[in-house]
Amino acid sequence: MKALVLRADWDPRPDYQVSDWERDSGKAVTGSSVWRRPRLQVEEAGTPVPAPHQVLVQVKACGICGSDVHFYETDRDGYMLYPGLTRFPSTVGHEFSGVVVQKGADVTDLAVGDLVTAEEMIWCGHCGPCRNGYPNQCVNLEEIGFTVDGAAAEYIAIGAKYCWKINAIGERLGDEQRTLEIGALTEPASVAYNGMFEAAGGFRPGQYVAVFGAGPIGLAAIGLAGAAGAGKVIAFETSAPRRDLALKVGADSAHDPTQLQASEVLLEASAGDGFDFFVEAAGAPQHTVPEMEAALAIGAKVVQIGRAAIRVPMYLERLQVRKAKVYGAQGHSGYGNFPNVIRLTASGRLDLYPIITGRFPLADGVRAIEQASKRTGGKILLTT
Amino acid sequence: MKALVLRADWDPRPDYQVSDWERDSGKAVTGSSVWRRPRLQVEEAGTPVPAPHQVLVQVKACGICGSDVHFYETDRDGYMLYPGLTRFPSTVGHEFSGVVVQKGADVTDLAVGDLVTAEEMIWCGHCGPCRNGYPNQCVNLEEIGFTVDGAAAEYIAIGAKYCWKINAIGERLGDEQRTLEIGALTEPASVAYNGMFEAAGGFRPGQYVAVFGAGPIGLAAIGLAGAAGAGKVIAFETSAPRRDLALKVGADSAHDPTQLQASEVLLEASAGDGFDFFVEAAGAPQHTVPEMEAALAIGAKVVQIGRAAIRVPMYLERLQVRKAKVYGAQGHSGYGNFPNVIRLTASGRLDLYPIITGRFPLADGVRAIEQASKRTGGKILLTT
Repeated sequence: MKALVLRADWDPRPDYQVSDWERDSGKAVTGSSVWRRPRLQVEEAGTPVPAPHQVLVQVKACGICGSDVHFYETDRDGYMLYPGLTRFPSTVGHEFSGVVVQKGADVTDLAVGDLVTAEEMIWCGHCGPCRNGYPNQCVNLEEIGFTVDGAAAEYIAIGAKYCWKINAIGERLGDEQRTLEIGALTEPASVAYNGMFEAAGGFRPGQYVAVFGAGPIGLAAIGLAGAAGAGKVIAFETSAPRRDLALKVGADSAHDPTQLQASEVLLEASAGDGFDFFVEAAGAPQHTVPEMEAALAIGAKVVQIGRAAIRVPMYLERLQVRKAKVYGAQGHSGYGNFPNVIRLTASGRLDLYPIITGRFPLADGVRAIEQASKRTGGKILLTT
Repeated sequence: MKALVLRADWDPRPDYQVSDWERDSGKAVTGSSVWRRPRLQVEEAGTPVPAPHQVLVQVKACGICGSDVHFYETDRDGYMLYPGLTRFPSTVGHEFSGVVVQKGADVTDLAVGDLVTAEEMIWCGHCGPCRNGYPNQCVNLEEIGFTVDGAAAEYIAIGAKYCWKINAIGERLGDEQRTLEIGALTEPASVAYNGMFEAAGGFRPGQYVAVFGAGPIGLAAIGLAGAAGAGKVIAFETSAPRRDLALKVGADSAHDPTQLQASEVLLEASAGDGFDFFVEAAGAPQHTVPEMEAALAIGAKVVQIGRAAIRVPMYLERLQVRKAKVYGAQGHSGYGNFPNVIRLTASGRLDLYPIITGRFPLADGVRAIEQASKRTGGKILLTT
């Protein structure tokens, strides 16, 4: 089968302390300090054989994630930009949907022919955090497309417990290709859902929601905010095409934060009361958090979903005066996140189809990632 | 009657913009930018006459708060250090208990002879925040001892709705003086309670709690943590006598954070898991928050109660990786805070009596504040 494979050299930076665990496992905890000269190409690979607990999925759609772009981009020393857990070579891709074509002997709750999407986080289920209900903090985590072979391929073998059926979306749409494309958005939408509704506990219908950053996660957050009954949803995004997408998925307005003061927009839109719920999906909290602080409604919640390995000067006094809260979130597993996003999509209340702005065949995978690296559009899919 | 009165000169700093509201009301929003040359003395004042909705309370005990000390302390230009809402001259004092000796015509739920304590925040009950259940964010706030006459006096007239009966504490103790002294600790204990249990939603029995700062609020937090079933309570405090008090109110250990790394203590005490609940009662988040960040258990909560008008560099990525949350809190009103602190005290599960380390007669009020300004002991009371 064909697979989009990333290869890179294990060449730790001179100042990076490689742990015994990293050396033994071949996994780098901080990829950007270890992996150099990343090369991406479509290769011939063996079709995986599912283990007894796995299914073999014929991939139909696979989104390009910002992480995939960061695998490919390098700093001036040739190190990849992606800072997280990684082991290469690996087939990339983790936002996917497809059809179950084969199942292992122990799989009871999926059938050949089912349309599925899957979690990206291969949580172990037996470590301390997993036992306590924190799969996104699993200490034995594997990640498809990061540490084990991903879905930018014709087939992927994956544990059945990470798969979620999307047939219900198809029942509503009556269009299998569209169902599969929307299904491939479940993972990024679940990252937004996990941050907004699990980590931060959501907001009340009628409250005002601001979303900073309208990349795919931010766009999902905008759609989710509308679906959950926000009184207003205002988006901030530097890219004009992405601002258009924000409006398409339901933002009441979308603004370029480099051309105005976001906090002033929010205060004006709320008659001075401030906004109730803030989603940081820009990965630029040094710019966005001060604007949020200046526009906190009493009791406001801020949820940090975007990633940024920097310290942000925060005025905690503002949180105190406004009885406000800040929540950190990562991941998408557990807590009903995937099934609820699928139900919401099947209901029609969440429609992220407009955020798909590019489709490439798997054979053009490298070109797809180059396109995504422009960061001006919505979600780009590899489709087969 | 005698009253401890603070007088100061309205002398706004050259760079401070006095608003029309401040000029009309005589209230400074940022006291430290307006009030110069504070003078404190015990004076003869008229005994207040209660309005129909008020009671007249004969004050029996009145605590000295850090704010009172900041009224008295000045910077090199002679401006008072206290940065908040203030109008002078004013009788100071707001942590008090006493006996109802007279009641206005409209007061129905208090009787002459009742032992009471009272909120310090005179929330209006009709502004937007009050109508929405946020009394601590009242926009028409008056504060006893800050903008209206306080309780460092023989008598205070106060709205009955701000008063809470402490008779139940006396029923348990059978000692009226001790009841009144403990009752005067209800306000600072309610500040800790509001932050920990209302703003941050509390912790689960058995979880590990770290309290930074063992001044009166921090000591109350330690006592409350134990009463609520913390599996461990570890305190950090630079003053040795305050560390002793921390142990007396139930800390498992108390450490000098200048002599060791607080995060290491917490990680060691939790076998590397980190602590679940952090109370910032030191007012030094620039020092304490980084230690908390380094010792966050998965799902941990941080509540900022201490005040500090500074920006704190925060690594939000740590909150994300640990699914952690930060809550801002101010005030003590609403949410059952006062009655629950009183019930807990009456039950014997919360005993803050040991934190009272000094008693002065009202006539020695200035000396009491000078003693409190050393910041090495527990709560100092004016008793009558």
